[in-house]
Amino acid sequence: MMITLSDSTITERLVYWMSKGDLLIIGGNEDKENDREILKKFVDISREKNGPIGILTTATEYPEELGDTYRSIFEELGVSETVLFHIDTREKAEDPKTVQQLQNCNALFITGGDQVRLTSILGGTRFYTTLKELWLQKAFMIAGTSAGASVMSRHMIMSSVDTEDETIVEMGAGFDFMEDAIIDQHFSQRARFGRLMNAIAHNPQIMGIGIDENTAIWVKEEGRLFEVLGEHSVSLFDGKKLTYVDTTSHGDNHDITISGVRLHSLARGYTFDLITRELIQAPGGEHHEDQ
Amino acid sequence: MMITLSDSTITERLVYWMSKGDLLIIGGNEDKENDREILKKFVDISREKNGPIGILTTATEYPEELGDTYRSIFEELGVSETVLFHIDTREKAEDPKTVQQLQNCNALFITGGDQVRLTSILGGTRFYTTLKELWLQKAFMIAGTSAGASVMSRHMIMSSVDTEDETIVEMGAGFDFMEDAIIDQHFSQRARFGRLMNAIAHNPQIMGIGIDENTAIWVKEEGRLFEVLGEHSVSLFDGKKLTYVDTTSHGDNHDITISGVRLHSLARGYTFDLITRELIQAPGGEHHEDQ
Repeated sequence: MMITLSDSTITERLVYWMSKGDLLIIGGNEDKENDREILKKFVDISREKNGPIGILTTATEYPEELGDTYRSIFEELGVSETVLFHIDTREKAEDPKTVQQLQNCNALFITGGDQVRLTSILGGTRFYTTLKELWLQKAFMIAGTSAGASVMSRHMIMSSVDTEDETIVEMGAGFDFMEDAIIDQHFSQRARFGRLMNAIAHNPQIMGIGIDENTAIWVKEEGRLFEVLGEHSVSLFDGKKLTYVDTTSHGDNHDITISGVRLHSLARGYTFDLITRELIQAPGGEHHEDQ
Repeated sequence: MMITLSDSTITERLVYWMSKGDLLIIGGNEDKENDREILKKFVDISREKNGPIGILTTATEYPEELGDTYRSIFEELGVSETVLFHIDTREKAEDPKTVQQLQNCNALFITGGDQVRLTSILGGTRFYTTLKELWLQKAFMIAGTSAGASVMSRHMIMSSVDTEDETIVEMGAGFDFMEDAIIDQHFSQRARFGRLMNAIAHNPQIMGIGIDENTAIWVKEEGRLFEVLGEHSVSLFDGKKLTYVDTTSHGDNHDITISGVRLHSLARGYTFDLITRELIQAPGGEHHEDQ
């Protein structure tokens, strides 16, 4: 006997599948004064639909200043309405009025700061569940920079401490907009190669995505692929074909050993397929699938 | 018709092949005061034969201090005789007396400093050609730290400059003790991921070897394999299976794009096969060839 889905279920699933919003994941320190390529892209994509842009300042200890900075930039770039979400307690994140305001937006920008503030204040609240629903069902776009980038994936680097002997990477649950990925930001600028390698050693299924400053990935087509924007590079660490991993210590050496990571480093304009984990398009539209 | 080699030629080649010296390539800042694991290993290996250890200070601007530091350490570790080679001009590198002194040694330690001093002062001189001959034919051991590590390979990173837009990596010819490799040192500590990626993008045949501080590779068995020693990790970037490289600029972005690098990061005790480019042995002797 075949299991059949009712028409309404199929429609529901198609709608679900067809309407996941784009993500713009920024490696921090994006240009705010000159070309503003990345922020302009965010505004351009989100303005394809009507409605205001929300600015979420939960990650930062300076919500007023940072919120006003982004509000001014978005207005200068032609956005007619912005809504500041200065949510710094779980109570505020449950407030039905705030949730209603979010529902009126068509995009949200998540500022930098500390990603653990984002998950600890918003995790499981109405604000978060509404955001996820909007993103899943209504093509609601979400951008985030620095801490706001880290929080995008299901698995999140909370913090890392370099002791004399080892790098201790603390992982936690993120906002779950990308399943098999860990995002790291300020990648080249803060020398985070070791910490991202460490993170994927503990779960090779997950792809490590290291995004440089003033650089972003634009995740589109239902999360199937992304394009690189901005000034520097995006480094990808694919652990799926690992031949060996050892995360135990040997004597004084607490460093991991990992063999057979597949590595890509992509500059602006390149498109990468997150399903096949291959580079698929060069700037200008050339396809490079079989090269 | 078969081409046959005369007996003497065969013997010559076997002798040549059988007697290439070990290399100990150190990522800089090796422990000089406590366990001194790496320097001790150098002394242990080189003491298997008789004869003094030479100390080459050409790379540094402080040859006296640095030379005396290593001399004291080696003496404390039981070396009965050391020879300081304070060679800071090409004239001195041609001096037959100096060359004679080198021929009496059975190992040479090359200090840190600037690797371009090493190649520009020694390249093509009698001192260098004698060193290479000794290493090739008499199992003469060579150790080098920092600049003395960089100089070991045929292709050498001379310097790199991070401008606002790009990393400019200047390559040059090294001492050619390892053919298809580029050594970088202070790897994690100075965030040299980008510069090593850049170097291999320009010639994927070459394997990038990034050695952390107080960490070393001990290259043995005629350069066929190496073992990792010391505190941190060795990162290997194998470009042989690259699927795509683009070293041209796109707009303001001068970063390279590179896809399909095979990456390994090895802690102390692991052995890596430089011919097959695979991890072959874990600490304690376990083989991991087919894992």
